[in-house]
Amino acid sequence: MEAAAAHRVVLVGAGFGGLYAAQALKRAPIQLTVIDRRNFHLFQPLLYQVATGGLSPGEIASPVRHVLSRQRNARVWLAEVKDIDVENRRLRLDDGDASYDTLILATGSHYNYFGHDDWAALAPGLKSIEDATQIRRRILLAFESAEREHDPEQRRAWLTFAIAGGGPTGVELAGALGEIANDTLRHDFRSINPAEAAILLLEGGDRILPAFPPDLSAEAARALMKLGVRCRTSAMVVGLDSAGVTVRTGDHVERIAARTVLWAAGVQASGLGKILSDRTGAPTDRGGRLIVQPDLTVPGHPEIFVIGDLANFSHQTGQPLPGLAPVAMAEGRYVARAIQARLRGKTVSPFHYFDKGALATIGRNKAVAAFGRLHISGFFAWIVWLFVHLMYLVEFDNRLLVLVEWMYNYFTRNRGARLITGGR
Amino acid sequence: MEAAAAHRVVLVGAGFGGLYAAQALKRAPIQLTVIDRRNFHLFQPLLYQVATGGLSPGEIASPVRHVLSRQRNARVWLAEVKDIDVENRRLRLDDGDASYDTLILATGSHYNYFGHDDWAALAPGLKSIEDATQIRRRILLAFESAEREHDPEQRRAWLTFAIAGGGPTGVELAGALGEIANDTLRHDFRSINPAEAAILLLEGGDRILPAFPPDLSAEAARALMKLGVRCRTSAMVVGLDSAGVTVRTGDHVERIAARTVLWAAGVQASGLGKILSDRTGAPTDRGGRLIVQPDLTVPGHPEIFVIGDLANFSHQTGQPLPGLAPVAMAEGRYVARAIQARLRGKTVSPFHYFDKGALATIGRNKAVAAFGRLHISGFFAWIVWLFVHLMYLVEFDNRLLVLVEWMYNYFTRNRGARLITGGR
Repeated sequence: MEAAAAHRVVLVGAGFGGLYAAQALKRAPIQLTVIDRRNFHLFQPLLYQVATGGLSPGEIASPVRHVLSRQRNARVWLAEVKDIDVENRRLRLDDGDASYDTLILATGSHYNYFGHDDWAALAPGLKSIEDATQIRRRILLAFESAEREHDPEQRRAWLTFAIAGGGPTGVELAGALGEIANDTLRHDFRSINPAEAAILLLEGGDRILPAFPPDLSAEAARALMKLGVRCRTSAMVVGLDSAGVTVRTGDHVERIAARTVLWAAGVQASGLGKILSDRTGAPTDRGGRLIVQPDLTVPGHPEIFVIGDLANFSHQTGQPLPGLAPVAMAEGRYVARAIQARLRGKTVSPFHYFDKGALATIGRNKAVAAFGRLHISGFFAWIVWLFVHLMYLVEFDNRLLVLVEWMYNYFTRNRGARLITGGR
Repeated sequence: MEAAAAHRVVLVGAGFGGLYAAQALKRAPIQLTVIDRRNFHLFQPLLYQVATGGLSPGEIASPVRHVLSRQRNARVWLAEVKDIDVENRRLRLDDGDASYDTLILATGSHYNYFGHDDWAALAPGLKSIEDATQIRRRILLAFESAEREHDPEQRRAWLTFAIAGGGPTGVELAGALGEIANDTLRHDFRSINPAEAAILLLEGGDRILPAFPPDLSAEAARALMKLGVRCRTSAMVVGLDSAGVTVRTGDHVERIAARTVLWAAGVQASGLGKILSDRTGAPTDRGGRLIVQPDLTVPGHPEIFVIGDLANFSHQTGQPLPGLAPVAMAEGRYVARAIQARLRGKTVSPFHYFDKGALATIGRNKAVAAFGRLHISGFFAWIVWLFVHLMYLVEFDNRLLVLVEWMYNYFTRNRGARLITGGR
């Protein structure tokens, strides 16, 4: 086998960081193995659209195998990494193992319930396709239950939706829920008026979208209010059960009866981060992210790169770079360049991120966007949001489908993918 | 409440029969309650496309509540019927009850494993969205497992797909599988050649598509062979486990190692048929279908109509009408007409079905079609198939999306919705 002589790069995780690294290694004289426990790359920024019935799962996911099918130096394995033998440079998989000369870890993050792991079942987060269809089921079932409920207090609890976390995901979920209640379901019920739904966005900090400039946070709160969403800032979720949430604002503790609680409040690095830290002694931060060197490697292991949400890169501003797709993509491309330089006996300068700005959408025709000192909001920002998101969808057919679906949704205020699947 | 005085029609099941009955009752002076345990109408004829990654679930399903949102005399309940109190004209639901003056039962059928209920977990049938995504998962995982399998015999078993039942669903599944192996996955693997997959269509009768004229059966078998599908007729499945199937052809018994077995061989009426038979003494046939009167009612109960796959109507030809969507739709419209006539004190003549013909598609550009004595096959039949199926999709946005998706699939031979979801 001639390939056995080639430099073996193993890449774990086919999210934005991993996939961009793989594609940037297209012409490298290596043997690349891409390992993911799912068979598809997921376009996470649009996952909230699946959760709210605007898009179907297939429209925001692309089979990894297909994306890389023409890349002859790459093979794709559907497997889960269980352990890392850094001494012998070998990964232990759920069904075998994989040896590497260079390892790239890009396994991302999942939601963090501040130590209350039992809350995960009560208030689903939004990281996977299954999360999204579960949230979709809960939202739709809440309206169905309200329609058949005779007790007014119970009906109110079914029509109350609380979202914990006022970052972009929380804002986008809240905006979409506002639209569903006010427009999409307007004519669908006989006993209830969906527009009477109460949608609460609970943020622990003093404003929503804390990573954005303050003027855009205020703009987003105004746009959400028009969609019937109430933003509660400085509001910490301190209790959660199947009947509602307990919220503390300063010294004031309040109980809110809400049958549907969604979680968008803070993430935790994937478990592989801890395993790598245990095996190499590499430090992690509070969120479990590996604190990487200026070249995105782990201390003492120049053959191990960590990128995306799994990495804490603080060499540029003293603060870790945010967990955003553009950061992961830039890191992926940097690692590909670094590997190729090394194979030619060269070195590369430390990683540097050029800020691409931040975008969040609110409902069907408003968004906020910050590009350095340029802040825009409203319809124009939404057009920018639309364009950016369509361009980064990995496959052309997905782009076309999503565009058709969005055009239809935009003009009819309908949401076609409102299916309750997977049991009740 | 003024509606309390109106004639109460309760309709159970929002498949083709139920939905067409509901819509045909649009202007009737009644109070209509549509009960379904799912919140969507499913376009069953295209379910095999979801199972083979060509379409997403949302594209072939429409929320019942939305379809009927403008129909002011109709309300929709998401509930399951547990029992029927024919004496007091009341349904017992999983969470309440519903009284009727007239009842329409249209709950359809599910797959029948000839008494081997344990086979259901081994060889999934294709009736629900969950079935379709499960079959999709199994097909895709079989190729993934073959890619990583070193033992040639095991690899062969992973690449062998057996489909039990040579009716339209079996033929359509086999054709789509042939395309997946020969076209869609062509460049995606490194260790296996997907085109080496063995696809077997097992039919107990002496030809596939037994409900079609013999010349079209032969035509379909030829078209399947070109896609690499081998048709085995007079082949009864007599054993089934996770490693393969046992098939009897006459006196010859053969074991076929196949890790993926799909079931498309014979249906059984929904459980509500037996409940109604127990409560009214109405006779059922071997498949559990209720043998209905010439006006589609149950003997002794002119207020109970049974339509679609749950009904056995043999008054026209001596043979029961086939379990096809056009039959269910015609029965639904007839029942709506009968109810409105009765309310005006009139009677209607017995139900009569005008044969709409039969259609089955084989792969991406061939089909067979029988309209009375007119038999067509090949590309032209496929265009007819395409047109008929697009026209009957319930919602306009679904039609548009499906058309875009099909056009893309047709020209690129790709299948975008190849997601493995729901665990492994």
